[in-house]
Amino acid sequence: MTSNQQHNKEYHVQPVGIVSSEIREPVHSAGDDGISLNEKMAAVQAQHQRIKTLMSEIEIFSEYEGILEGVEDFSHIMVLYWPHLIDEQRRGLRQTRPMGRADMPVKGIFSTCSPARPNPVLVSTVRLLERKGNILRVRGFEAIDGSPVIDIKPFVRMSHGADNPVVPDWMKQIHRELESGQEKG
Amino acid sequence: MTSNQQHNKEYHVQPVGIVSSEIREPVHSAGDDGISLNEKMAAVQAQHQRIKTLMSEIEIFSEYEGILEGVEDFSHIMVLYWPHLIDEQRRGLRQTRPMGRADMPVKGIFSTCSPARPNPVLVSTVRLLERKGNILRVRGFEAIDGSPVIDIKPFVRMSHGADNPVVPDWMKQIHRELESGQEKG
Repeated sequence: MTSNQQHNKEYHVQPVGIVSSEIREPVHSAGDDGISLNEKMAAVQAQHQRIKTLMSEIEIFSEYEGILEGVEDFSHIMVLYWPHLIDEQRRGLRQTRPMGRADMPVKGIFSTCSPARPNPVLVSTVRLLERKGNILRVRGFEAIDGSPVIDIKPFVRMSHGADNPVVPDWMKQIHRELESGQEKG
Repeated sequence: MTSNQQHNKEYHVQPVGIVSSEIREPVHSAGDDGISLNEKMAAVQAQHQRIKTLMSEIEIFSEYEGILEGVEDFSHIMVLYWPHLIDEQRRGLRQTRPMGRADMPVKGIFSTCSPARPNPVLVSTVRLLERKGNILRVRGFEAIDGSPVIDIKPFVRMSHGADNPVVPDWMKQIHRELESGQEKG
């Protein structure tokens, strides 16, 4: 297939399930106006720490019966989900400042974890605690309540992991700040 | 949003780029008839070992100019791509034997890495060696030539990694066999 043929292609995905979570809204998109960077980062830190131990549920729709068989034998799964509250127009975004922070350098969307991206399929690796029929109980899942689930995969280090991944300084700084919230809290 | 509303939803994804690789066809789907398990596993092992050092290129289409800015500062990226040679009908598959092997137990698709799944968005973490404009040179990418790329994300251990992931015995066995190919080769 040539690159030209790919330009014209379009694929369809349909939710196979839905997330139940206490997280009701994305902390990043809570209107940026009038909040200082410190206030904003405090909220992001608090959410980040909360999510580490947060329990959520993923319900796989009943028409997919049998598709989860054996997934309970994995300790970790990757969940692919759609950030359904993102405005369709924001899929056109090409660059952004990480976390919308004025003190961060402008980066291409593919260098960031921004949920606003051309194909907003988000990926989260979470701890799988239990399967009860078509319900998965997971820990550490950042998806907000009602997020459509696109796919569930077992986490396989060989395909999905990375040895000693290197990240740029701006991301190290964000991670340091997110973790420093733990000490303060 | 209720689970009922999600049932009716459909989302669209469009390729943002395309893979160039020496891998021309998926080794798993090379007609199973008449090949013994040993022959098949020998082919899979050889492909697995080859892919570890294989260099591929990902071309991001020119209309996404700027979207890769800064991605070169990460050592690893996650590539989301579509297995375009999979028959649409195979999206209906609910269970399978891992790698199509008669000696493996029947498992739900969400317990396997089968490319035939309801929403066939595949995820691979690969080593990013270089960016030249809109071209990424990567190592260790299993996608076949011409695969449509859906998304590129930086690999971030916090979101995508897993500490001490546990996998079931059947997957351990497959991994052992894939690696034993190295010794023989």
